[in-house]
Amino acid sequence: MAFELIKKVRLCEVGLRDGLQNEKKILTADEKMELLDGVQAAGFPVIEVGSFVGPRAVPQMADTDQLFMRMKKRDGVEYRALVANVKGVERAEACGCKKIKLNVSASVSHNLANLNCTPAQSVARFGECVDRAGAAGIEVSGSISMAFGSPWDEEIPIGNVQEIVEAYLNAGITEISLSDASGMAYPSQVYDICLKMKENYPQVNWWLHFHNTRGLGIANILTAMQLGFAQFDTSFAGTGGCPFVPGAAGNVATEDVLHMCEEMGIETGIDLDCAMEVGHRAESLLGHPASSCVLKAGKAKDILLMKPEGQTIK
Amino acid sequence: MAFELIKKVRLCEVGLRDGLQNEKKILTADEKMELLDGVQAAGFPVIEVGSFVGPRAVPQMADTDQLFMRMKKRDGVEYRALVANVKGVERAEACGCKKIKLNVSASVSHNLANLNCTPAQSVARFGECVDRAGAAGIEVSGSISMAFGSPWDEEIPIGNVQEIVEAYLNAGITEISLSDASGMAYPSQVYDICLKMKENYPQVNWWLHFHNTRGLGIANILTAMQLGFAQFDTSFAGTGGCPFVPGAAGNVATEDVLHMCEEMGIETGIDLDCAMEVGHRAESLLGHPASSCVLKAGKAKDILLMKPEGQTIK
Repeated sequence: MAFELIKKVRLCEVGLRDGLQNEKKILTADEKMELLDGVQAAGFPVIEVGSFVGPRAVPQMADTDQLFMRMKKRDGVEYRALVANVKGVERAEACGCKKIKLNVSASVSHNLANLNCTPAQSVARFGECVDRAGAAGIEVSGSISMAFGSPWDEEIPIGNVQEIVEAYLNAGITEISLSDASGMAYPSQVYDICLKMKENYPQVNWWLHFHNTRGLGIANILTAMQLGFAQFDTSFAGTGGCPFVPGAAGNVATEDVLHMCEEMGIETGIDLDCAMEVGHRAESLLGHPASSCVLKAGKAKDILLMKPEGQTIK
Repeated sequence: MAFELIKKVRLCEVGLRDGLQNEKKILTADEKMELLDGVQAAGFPVIEVGSFVGPRAVPQMADTDQLFMRMKKRDGVEYRALVANVKGVERAEACGCKKIKLNVSASVSHNLANLNCTPAQSVARFGECVDRAGAAGIEVSGSISMAFGSPWDEEIPIGNVQEIVEAYLNAGITEISLSDASGMAYPSQVYDICLKMKENYPQVNWWLHFHNTRGLGIANILTAMQLGFAQFDTSFAGTGGCPFVPGAAGNVATEDVLHMCEEMGIETGIDLDCAMEVGHRAESLLGHPASSCVLKAGKAKDILLMKPEGQTIK
C-alpha cells in the first residue's frame, strides 16, 4: 500500500477573474496587466484572464477585452475567459480570446427561479454560443457551479450534475469543470462525486475548482488527486470569496497549492517564488492580505535560512 | 474502491496551552476558566489545560496550577498538561493533574546545542519524571516535536524519530504524539511516516499534532485518518503559531476539523456550535481574529438558513 498520487498537475491561475471580481476595489487595467505579466512569468500553463459579461453586473471585469488586446501571448499557454451568452462570444472573438468557459449552476431551484428552465435546459440553450465560437475558431469548455452544494438546496443530487454533464457532451463540450463556489465541498463527497464522474464519463477532460471557505480547499484537491484528477483552478493570494459570506476565505490559494506540490514532488511547471511575488503584489494592490498561508509564513524550506538560534519549542 | 476513513476520532483541545502560549496578550485566570468551561461544555474528551514550566520562560502558562485547582472535572474527560522536569511533575501532583505530557525535539543538532545530548538521551533522562509520576498516580505520555521537519536540519531522518519512540517505550511510555510545531509536514510525508510508525510500533497509542502554518493542517489530518490514526490535537479559533514565523497561521483550527468531521459523518462526541462559541469568545478575549475558516464563514449547513435570494454566481 502506498499513497498514490499523480506526478504532474496543471494549474489554472484564476485570480485575475474569480479573485478580482470578488474584490470591492477595482484595479486599473495597468495594474491587472502587471499581475498578468507576473502570472505569465511564473509559468502557468492556463490563465483565466477575465469574463465577458455585462460591465454593470461585474464592473471588476469590464476591461477584459483590453487585457486580451494588450497582452503578449506565450506559446503553449491557454488564456481563457468566462462567457455568459452570444454577446460574450462576440467580444471574445473581437479581442482575440481563443478559449471560453460557459457556466451553469447545478441548483435546479436557483435556475428555475432565475431563468425559468432547468440547468440542463440552460446548457442546451448554449448551442448558439457553441456554434458562434466554433465558426470563430474559439475553443469552448463548460463549468458546473454549485456541483458540491448550494445555498438553495438541502442537497445537490449527483444525478442532477450528471444531467448537466450529459447536456454539455450533447453540445459537443468535453472539457468540464466542477466548481464549489459556495465552499461547501468536503473530502469524502469529493471522492464519491469524482469517482462516479470518472467512471461514467471517461471521455471528459476534467477541471476542479475549489474554494477554501471552510478550510477544506486543499484537502479536497488532495482527495481528487488520489483519483487521478490533475487540473485545478487556484487564485493568487487566495483572493476571491463566497458571495454569500462576506469576510470568508477565498479561492484555494495558488501559493499554498504550489508549495504542497513542490514538497510532494508533483510537477507543475510553475515557479513558486515568482508566483509568491505575484501574490504579494496582488495583496499590495488590493490593500489587504487575502487568505494564503504560504504568503504569510514563507516556504518550509526558507525556515532553514533563518537559522533561529537558541529558540526552543516549549 | 472507496474512500476509507475511520468512523470516530478523539480530539484534544490544546488552545488553552499551545494556542494561548503563543499569544502576546496574557489572559487572566478568570478568562481562561471561562474558556475552559466552554471547552468542557462542548464535550471534548481530552483537554490540554496548560504546562508546568518556568513562569519566566512562558508567563502565559504561569497559572496552570490555579486552573487545575479551580476547575470542576468531568467524568471520563482527560485533563493533561505539559511538563519539562521533575519540578513540573511535583506541581502536577500538588494541584491534582492526573496526566502529563513530556516532550523532546526530534532535531539532533538542536538538542545537542541546547542540552548537550541526543533526543533519545533526553528521553532516557525523563526516568526520574516517570518514576515520580508513577508514585503519584499520574499517567505519562510523550511527545516528539519537529517529527516532520525542523529549522535546524535539512531533513529529520525517520530513524531518528524511531529512536525516540523506542526510548519512550523503554521508559514505559506507550502514548506518543508526533508533532509538527514548525508547520513543515506535508501529506505524502505524513503518510510515509505514519505508515511506518503504525507498522513498527503497533503497541503505541498515537496522537498527531499539526499546525496550519502552510495551509496543510487539515490535509495532513485527512491523510493520517486514511491510515486509521484517530487522535488529533486542535486549537480553538486556530490560535497558536509558529515560533519562527510571526504572523503565520496557528494550530489547525478546532472548528474547521470539527466541521469537516461533521460533514463526513465522523463521530467526535463534540458539539460544533458550542465549540464555535468558544472560538469566537477566544478571539474576542485576545482582541484579534485567529485562523479558523469556519469561524469566519459559518457552517456550510447554515448557508441554507440565509436563503440568499436573487444572488447569482457569475
